[in-house]
Amino acid sequence: MSVAAVTPEKTLTFEQKLDRLADVAVRVGLGLKEGQELVLTASVDTLPLVRRITAHAYEAGASLVTTLLSDEASTLLRYRHGKDASFDKAAGWLYEGMAAAYASGAARMAVAGANPALLSKEDPEKVGRANRSNSIAYRPALELITKHAINWTIVPAATPDWAKLVFPDLPADQALARLWDAIFAATRVDREDPVAAWKEHDAKLHQRADYLNKKRYHALHFRGPGTDLTVGLADDHLWLGGGTQAHNGQYCIPNLPTEEVFTTPHKDRVNGTVTSTKPLSHQGTLIEKISVRFENGRIVEAHAAAGEAVLQRMIETDAGARMLGEVALVPHSSPISASGVLFWNTLFDENAACHIALGQAYSTCVKNGENMKPEELAAKGANESLIHVDWMIGSGEVSVDGVNADGSHEPLMVKGEFVTA
Amino acid sequence: MSVAAVTPEKTLTFEQKLDRLADVAVRVGLGLKEGQELVLTASVDTLPLVRRITAHAYEAGASLVTTLLSDEASTLLRYRHGKDASFDKAAGWLYEGMAAAYASGAARMAVAGANPALLSKEDPEKVGRANRSNSIAYRPALELITKHAINWTIVPAATPDWAKLVFPDLPADQALARLWDAIFAATRVDREDPVAAWKEHDAKLHQRADYLNKKRYHALHFRGPGTDLTVGLADDHLWLGGGTQAHNGQYCIPNLPTEEVFTTPHKDRVNGTVTSTKPLSHQGTLIEKISVRFENGRIVEAHAAAGEAVLQRMIETDAGARMLGEVALVPHSSPISASGVLFWNTLFDENAACHIALGQAYSTCVKNGENMKPEELAAKGANESLIHVDWMIGSGEVSVDGVNADGSHEPLMVKGEFVTA
Ligand SMILES: [Zn+2]
Ligand SMILES: [Zn+2]
Ligand SMILES: [Zn+2]
Ligand SMILES: [Zn+2]
Repeated sequence: MSVAAVTPEKTLTFEQKLDRLADVAVRVGLGLKEGQELVLTASVDTLPLVRRITAHAYEAGASLVTTLLSDEASTLLRYRHGKDASFDKAAGWLYEGMAAAYASGAARMAVAGANPALLSKEDPEKVGRANRSNSIAYRPALELITKHAINWTIVPAATPDWAKLVFPDLPADQALARLWDAIFAATRVDREDPVAAWKEHDAKLHQRADYLNKKRYHALHFRGPGTDLTVGLADDHLWLGGGTQAHNGQYCIPNLPTEEVFTTPHKDRVNGTVTSTKPLSHQGTLIEKISVRFENGRIVEAHAAAGEAVLQRMIETDAGARMLGEVALVPHSSPISASGVLFWNTLFDENAACHIALGQAYSTCVKNGENMKPEELAAKGANESLIHVDWMIGSGEVSVDGVNADGSHEPLMVKGEFVTA
Repeated sequence: MSVAAVTPEKTLTFEQKLDRLADVAVRVGLGLKEGQELVLTASVDTLPLVRRITAHAYEAGASLVTTLLSDEASTLLRYRHGKDASFDKAAGWLYEGMAAAYASGAARMAVAGANPALLSKEDPEKVGRANRSNSIAYRPALELITKHAINWTIVPAATPDWAKLVFPDLPADQALARLWDAIFAATRVDREDPVAAWKEHDAKLHQRADYLNKKRYHALHFRGPGTDLTVGLADDHLWLGGGTQAHNGQYCIPNLPTEEVFTTPHKDRVNGTVTSTKPLSHQGTLIEKISVRFENGRIVEAHAAAGEAVLQRMIETDAGARMLGEVALVPHSSPISASGVLFWNTLFDENAACHIALGQAYSTCVKNGENMKPEELAAKGANESLIHVDWMIGSGEVSVDGVNADGSHEPLMVKGEFVTA
């Protein structure tokens, strides 16, 4: 028999874990520089974490922390009371302001805790128009982020509505506590030394990306229930994973948690059928059991058991919205996947399974891509779109082959696990 | 004998009064135009009113309501954890964004409910630097507002910290309820027909301004305990009061409540001593029993029983900070004054007593002033500064004479009440 040892992390109070999450977010996720300005976005439901992050950012030498707080109840009021003509308007002045802040050196942190089902009952046509207007207005700011001009990160915070969706059978307070525990585990702040744990994990993701970059596969072949999909990889594609050195010199880990390695597919060389393995929460609406067929890169048929109208609108956003901009590999044994919890939140669910994204490709996933013009990137196979929507196609039943230029296959993942790397 | 009639307004629930306040704010205060964008600022403590305003704005046809929510706890964290070098930074990108929104047609509403004593215990030197940086960054946006390029308004909301300061002897919930009642009374939403009540009140303020505009006094002479002050009026000064037609065509009442008529003093023709009759809350700090002496327009001596350091820093902001930019007349019998409550909030206290403001003059209070260059305005006597700080000099013991160009005096207010008008 054995007596259970009380490990230090078990004795941490909720407040201490919250404070550790803020510390990890600022130091490990964001890599805030002394004297740097910080632009933080968060919902009012996440204020306790926002305040901890603010304190840690100022301690790390932030010159100013500006938090743009959103209120989901106010968001809903637009759908309840807004005139039909209003749904094509976006706060361009605010997004341009954010872009100006980044251009002048500010860092960017987002606290993610939205209710994944906020807009599920609203008119998909209005939701689609509002999303499209926002995407267009947000584009200049987003480009500075995706090109890693600045250091940025996204960290999760549990909120009551999100917790209720994840743990529908638990009382509200228990659901919230369970979701916080899952967040503390996924962000490694319940480890004895979270910073050291992140260092080790980050090294492992880089090692995996390096392996794939040496392999230089021409395509990946996904096989599983409802899935037989070949995803060509862009010419000069680069696999990335873990942290990145931003162009302002700061090292950041853009997503907390992160378990993926990812690259840019070739937009014209995607063929076959694929079925989603987890439901997708897309800007407040839920899309379940997606099943699509690709021909020469384009979706030619798309279905979903729930939210099909939202899916259809999404892929009609623009020409690139029905083509792939990302493919990512995540072992089925990843800690988030092993938790068995469905988070209805891309930050978690995309780090629990292999996934693909419709829409915009990351120029950083093409060699020297950040310095290329749109035409040059397109020539390499990188897709362009207003949207970038990740959805999950991996599971313990899905295997992946690496396909060489000569057509030969080699097993890369078998039943959800990497064969080597 | 008589039986007290139950008037309809007595039967209104708190929720109904809150909803009426939002309705009055949008329709009477702001005069929102169908299809117009709205930029709203508020503290997170005022979310219940913010949501009502949002609903009423969308019902009135707002194309988009964007609320910039502030969190006072986060503001304090800067003073607790920020490095010394950080206090000269302002979110210029955000203020520029707001200016861009106004320039492109957005309306502006501020919900005022700040804790008047938030920064009272912080280092006045840091508070002063932070305020100065903000004033500089905010200037372009503020100019569009003060010139009435757009329709705008400020409405109050009770918050726990503010209520505690106003009613220190009451339990927290009673203090909050009392402050809400005072707000509902001052904003006339407890009347049977608030919109009609505002129409009548607005007409009265315009009538009073018209009377003074016909009089064309050369100066005003204030006399009372600790006060013997002559305030020269600017050449071609204009008295304003109540609502204004903004240049975008919308009629708005910029302050709810408002009881004042006000104009531009001549910056070089202010002489004598003046003592404040109510304490002043200035950006989170409290200044009490101000006593200053003017010579040829400039403060040459300044004291305060509390907050003197903040006062000194304030008047050292720039050359115009020790000169007057506004003089305003309010009868002592005004409903806010009659309530006997000290609000520690300029929106209320300046509407309970005659007041003067140090700093920037309103170009709208000079004939054709909005079309004049800074030099032309200065030649008329209009002051220029980064600050505009109102403080109260009127009471039931203060009388005001109108002084004609020939030096003759005529009584305008006696013991706080208008003789005619
Ligand atoms: Zn991904
Ligand atoms: Zn993605
Ligand atoms: Zn005034
Ligand atoms: Zn004023």
